[in-house]
Amino acid sequence: MQNVTLSRPFDLAGTLRRARTASRALARADRDGALLRIADALLERRAEILAANAEDVAAERAKGTPDALLDRLTLDELRLQGIADAVRQVAGLPDPLHRHLDSWTLPNGLVVRKVSVPFGVIGMVYESRPNVTVDAAVLALRAGSAVVLRGSANALRSNRVLVAAMRDALPRAGLPEDAVQLIDSPDRRFVTELLSARGLVDLVIPRGGASLINHVVETAKVPVIETGTGNCHIFVDASADLERAEAVVLNAKVQRPGVCNAAETLLVHEAVAETFLPRVLTTLERAGVRLVGCERTRAVHPGVGVATEADWETEYLGLELAVRVVASLDEVVDHINRYGTQHSEAILTGSSENASRFQDEVDAAAVFVNASTRFTDGFEFGFGAEIGISTQKLHARGPLGLAEITTYKYLLNGQGQVRR
Amino acid sequence: MQNVTLSRPFDLAGTLRRARTASRALARADRDGALLRIADALLERRAEILAANAEDVAAERAKGTPDALLDRLTLDELRLQGIADAVRQVAGLPDPLHRHLDSWTLPNGLVVRKVSVPFGVIGMVYESRPNVTVDAAVLALRAGSAVVLRGSANALRSNRVLVAAMRDALPRAGLPEDAVQLIDSPDRRFVTELLSARGLVDLVIPRGGASLINHVVETAKVPVIETGTGNCHIFVDASADLERAEAVVLNAKVQRPGVCNAAETLLVHEAVAETFLPRVLTTLERAGVRLVGCERTRAVHPGVGVATEADWETEYLGLELAVRVVASLDEVVDHINRYGTQHSEAILTGSSENASRFQDEVDAAAVFVNASTRFTDGFEFGFGAEIGISTQKLHARGPLGLAEITTYKYLLNGQGQVRR
Repeated sequence: MQNVTLSRPFDLAGTLRRARTASRALARADRDGALLRIADALLERRAEILAANAEDVAAERAKGTPDALLDRLTLDELRLQGIADAVRQVAGLPDPLHRHLDSWTLPNGLVVRKVSVPFGVIGMVYESRPNVTVDAAVLALRAGSAVVLRGSANALRSNRVLVAAMRDALPRAGLPEDAVQLIDSPDRRFVTELLSARGLVDLVIPRGGASLINHVVETAKVPVIETGTGNCHIFVDASADLERAEAVVLNAKVQRPGVCNAAETLLVHEAVAETFLPRVLTTLERAGVRLVGCERTRAVHPGVGVATEADWETEYLGLELAVRVVASLDEVVDHINRYGTQHSEAILTGSSENASRFQDEVDAAAVFVNASTRFTDGFEFGFGAEIGISTQKLHARGPLGLAEITTYKYLLNGQGQVRR
Repeated sequence: MQNVTLSRPFDLAGTLRRARTASRALARADRDGALLRIADALLERRAEILAANAEDVAAERAKGTPDALLDRLTLDELRLQGIADAVRQVAGLPDPLHRHLDSWTLPNGLVVRKVSVPFGVIGMVYESRPNVTVDAAVLALRAGSAVVLRGSANALRSNRVLVAAMRDALPRAGLPEDAVQLIDSPDRRFVTELLSARGLVDLVIPRGGASLINHVVETAKVPVIETGTGNCHIFVDASADLERAEAVVLNAKVQRPGVCNAAETLLVHEAVAETFLPRVLTTLERAGVRLVGCERTRAVHPGVGVATEADWETEYLGLELAVRVVASLDEVVDHINRYGTQHSEAILTGSSENASRFQDEVDAAAVFVNASTRFTDGFEFGFGAEIGISTQKLHARGPLGLAEITTYKYLLNGQGQVRR
């Protein structure tokens, strides 16, 4: 396979054109059936998949890559079973296509219908975890789009076999195999080419760390949905139930600190700072959280480090938390709208007035009252799937489920109407 | 004013930051009232506006600019009255904000509400017509966003006075004047800077010719809605009512040939080519339309020029039409999906099966059955306004009314829910 790759350079434009042709057949095809065939194929070919993955892991280990990163790359029987189960779940979700979104009749009798349709060709640019290869492909397929995948170079062997298994399965349900394709080259110029392929790709979704996302957004000439970065805040108001507040803050910070909807900064109203901070910060320290804070925080709870401007701006993605005492809701809103990434923000309060103001004035995809920021997630939202979490305002905000990766068209039916 | 501009270079980042601050107040402000004040101010200051516009027109005439282009630039009493009337109409439209889009309750009791909210800061990059300055500003304001305007250099004097009038009017309704700002410089580097201002501008909408649109889409690192290009087709099927078909084709081509929803290519089923083409092409010729066609068209109707590949690709925006005889609906769909710009496409047919297939398989924002493509328009659709027509699939397709220039957020209310 390596030889084939070397002797025939990868043809991205051709790949995208084949994806376009394949995409035409998908809206009316048996997409559910195809996903069930894919789940079967992944399990049937488990030996081949795990062998390829073991090669990827071994090559990466030889480079001295840390265990945590190796773990992200690794597949095993259990994980593969989990991937196949997830594919079957997506097959069982309601079809996001052919939905009637709106309709009305113009004064001249022309009937307008607005219906959901596929994007066409979706590009995915992502890192490491080979499960994303399958996740992204089946979500795109279920939403009626062909998908062109570009995973990371260190997962290329795994991705080749996963994509081969999916492609083999598609014709068994009558779908064209070119509905799923891999950019089978580690050369980064194909990412640039994909991001410039206006007219050939309808949407690119990046998924990975901040530098990947930034590269895609800065480079792309095709439509992109920016995902991922979450510098999320929790504000504990003067009227908050402090016992519940402690539990929510702990959950938002430590339940899974490496994800985008975890909290990175705690804001506490000055009226409860002396009561609340010692207990919550002690609890956080016991959970292994490194703390930095403003002067007022440090005065109340010695041992907290000095928070710099960089701390307010940082998505730690780990067991670190910045803490600030604030004097008013205005100060809170200003802080969040200045440093936040418009992902998930929470107020813990007993005041319905403050809750409303916070939800109104804070600019974010998901604004919580008395709940953990960790609920911004396609599965928690009940979407049954998630291809990422949007942090831009164009098209979709927050969790991207199946409905969010479709678009619409207007169908207009008349009897010879002309414009006057 | 010229001196001030020269001595203090224009500060785009500062402009965008002031726009952001102003935007925070808009969702709950008296936006209707502000629009009515703007309409008044435009008429109160008509002498000043028309004088500035006369200077722009004189400067342009001195360059030898053709009359048609001068006309696009020119304002007079009647046009200014029309602009003010349009502003009042927008003030009377339903508020696109605070709309309840969806709501549900999660199994843990968390209530999710999805509501429409403003984008925040919208940038507009456009050409010539000074009426766009007012149109774009009031649509953005009505949709709760601050707007930063970049018109063409040759309309800068007009735009300065129009923007000054709007800014003066805003505080009279309690709105911050920085909700409307002008990029008061002809220097193109400010366009590049605007298109790169991630985090400072939430959306840029280009409006103008293909080269402007392409420049914006290729350059932008911020979210953009691509608008405008319309290579639209009309297909006359074997079962079409040929009398109505003739009227629709004529309307789609000649009623206003310079706009994006006018037809550029006529496709005719071979079964009716010999009957239909001589009459419709004669009618079109009498209306001043220059015709090019495929060999079969030219065999039926002598005098038609040779259509080249370039003709199928061209949006003429004038009294020109490409004509092609086709053998099947498959050929029609292939032609349109290959050459079309996903704007507006029409089938004229007596077959409901062919109508459905055409609407299903043709990839465009608006797909018509038995009606002119000219109806793809915010006013015709009943949106009451239009800031452009989207030809991309991300966010909104087709006419962009007030609802299409809003986004949404999720509001989640709980009682201390944490994630398990």
